[in-house]
Amino acid sequence: MTSKNFDVVGIGNAIVDVLVQSDDSFLAQHGLNKGTMALVSAEQAEQLYAAMGPGVETSGGSAANTLAAVAQLGGRAGFIGRVRNDQLGAIFAHDLRATGAHFDTPAAESGAATARCMILVTPDAQRTMCTFLGASVALDPRDLDLSIVRQAQVLYLEGYLWDAEPAKRAFLAAAAEVRAHGGQVALSLSDPFCVDRHRQSFLELVEGHVDLLFANEREIMSLYATDSFERATEQVRGHCSLAALTRSDQGSLVLEGELTHLIPIYGLGPLVDTTGAGDSYAAGFLYGYTQGLSAERCGHIGALCAGQVVTQMGPRSQVSLKELVLEHLP
Amino acid sequence: MTSKNFDVVGIGNAIVDVLVQSDDSFLAQHGLNKGTMALVSAEQAEQLYAAMGPGVETSGGSAANTLAAVAQLGGRAGFIGRVRNDQLGAIFAHDLRATGAHFDTPAAESGAATARCMILVTPDAQRTMCTFLGASVALDPRDLDLSIVRQAQVLYLEGYLWDAEPAKRAFLAAAAEVRAHGGQVALSLSDPFCVDRHRQSFLELVEGHVDLLFANEREIMSLYATDSFERATEQVRGHCSLAALTRSDQGSLVLEGELTHLIPIYGLGPLVDTTGAGDSYAAGFLYGYTQGLSAERCGHIGALCAGQVVTQMGPRSQVSLKELVLEHLP
Repeated sequence: MTSKNFDVVGIGNAIVDVLVQSDDSFLAQHGLNKGTMALVSAEQAEQLYAAMGPGVETSGGSAANTLAAVAQLGGRAGFIGRVRNDQLGAIFAHDLRATGAHFDTPAAESGAATARCMILVTPDAQRTMCTFLGASVALDPRDLDLSIVRQAQVLYLEGYLWDAEPAKRAFLAAAAEVRAHGGQVALSLSDPFCVDRHRQSFLELVEGHVDLLFANEREIMSLYATDSFERATEQVRGHCSLAALTRSDQGSLVLEGELTHLIPIYGLGPLVDTTGAGDSYAAGFLYGYTQGLSAERCGHIGALCAGQVVTQMGPRSQVSLKELVLEHLP
Repeated sequence: MTSKNFDVVGIGNAIVDVLVQSDDSFLAQHGLNKGTMALVSAEQAEQLYAAMGPGVETSGGSAANTLAAVAQLGGRAGFIGRVRNDQLGAIFAHDLRATGAHFDTPAAESGAATARCMILVTPDAQRTMCTFLGASVALDPRDLDLSIVRQAQVLYLEGYLWDAEPAKRAFLAAAAEVRAHGGQVALSLSDPFCVDRHRQSFLELVEGHVDLLFANEREIMSLYATDSFERATEQVRGHCSLAALTRSDQGSLVLEGELTHLIPIYGLGPLVDTTGAGDSYAAGFLYGYTQGLSAERCGHIGALCAGQVVTQMGPRSQVSLKELVLEHLP
């Protein structure tokens, strides 16, 4: 696989995050389910924004966060996703390219504005998200730069794209293309409600087309419609060559054939904001994987990157992940 | 003065900040003078932005930061400044209103985009700023809502406005209006180079129209074209009823007639980013002043607010300043 030009190429929603400190009563008042992601219309987004406190804007998007971190780690990263040609779209593109990642999906010239995700961070460091998908939904198979997809060792897809039908088609076309050229497909399940909305379709994907699966406890249980994490674990084991299952402060499990590697958490400081924890875990794992490291070591790099990002506000590390790995996992 | 509807009304540039972690070599490479503010054209801003690392966007503007903090402290705050009707303009307006401050200057319908300030934060926590003034420059006397200005106990003006001729005229018209209605005028000198560009004009203003002056050591020395802080101190003493002179980690001096109050710094944690330190000091001071507190106590509240904001990235406190004051200065 080393003749490829990219270690990891991601397809996902191109989103700018608006981070706001909030509290449980605000979530209750607006009917928001803590720790999950809800889709909102432009009108709902306006109303919610008007009610929120002062925010901080930072580039986000699940797969985009992962690819930014892969680039920060020193991996060759590419991203495909759609912004509008507006101020937030320019910010998204700048921040991603500034990490060293390749990003050249043309910005939409008309239609909805660049996607925005309002992230309410509660004092327990949990994040609750309301996403206006905007221009992200406009991604379709014609936007796919297959010359980049073919050059990926691993194609990384976020489950959130399943909420946008044309993006889902782009996603499947890219998965077929990368596999036809000897690459592998990785999927993040993204969110328990997202899994719930698209369960059958995700099951077919996981069972037929996914080499590496990333999910947290609630997502994998939602996929197999079970309330037993152990049962979900046994079900997924047969279907992907590798599955990394994260369990918040209980660490993570990496399933590799019949083996189960238990990975601890890396507590690097007080917990501030869990936004981007899963995205960073996937980044560390995929970086290690494309460097040819063992599954267990990939899990440790993922856990370390996640451990760093939860000590700060926002989904992308403000310290060098490359130096972090050199320091903690030499 | 208590019959007024606003404790403090500010006039200033309406700016969104782009905060980026940087280093001394980047400053040197781009000819930037550490700790100061440089004005850049739209083209220069584009070039610099393309060269910078990933950023975080947050509402800024010197006087706007001060008024946001006055509102956070519980004061009745208003702000006058011009954005464009674009995405960053909407973010600026939201963040200011979300603090409780009044802000209704109409957004420009055409012309340059909302002002943007690229703030390069070096590992020593110093901030170096490059500002594209954009729509801020479009503020002119016709934008002044005199019904708000007349209702101010204190009108607060940032020296940076002197770089935009129509804004300067608006600023002088507002100062005359507030004084005619029994209010007072406060001025922040903003930046040593800004003072240097407009020294004569600032001297006339300070000597004839300013009741409360805020400046740091380099600014007050620039105003009186002297390399002696003591000499500058004696010169300013006669001209304003109150002058608060900040000296970074050496604390601040509050000059009140013949009295000099020495105010210590409040070290609340590791120094992260000095952006907004002066703005927060002015906020604490003006809040105390409009509550009728002694000049010395006003200085302490200012120093406390500044001590908080330097422990975080960005110019506006992420913790409640009201609670901070209750805790440290009950």
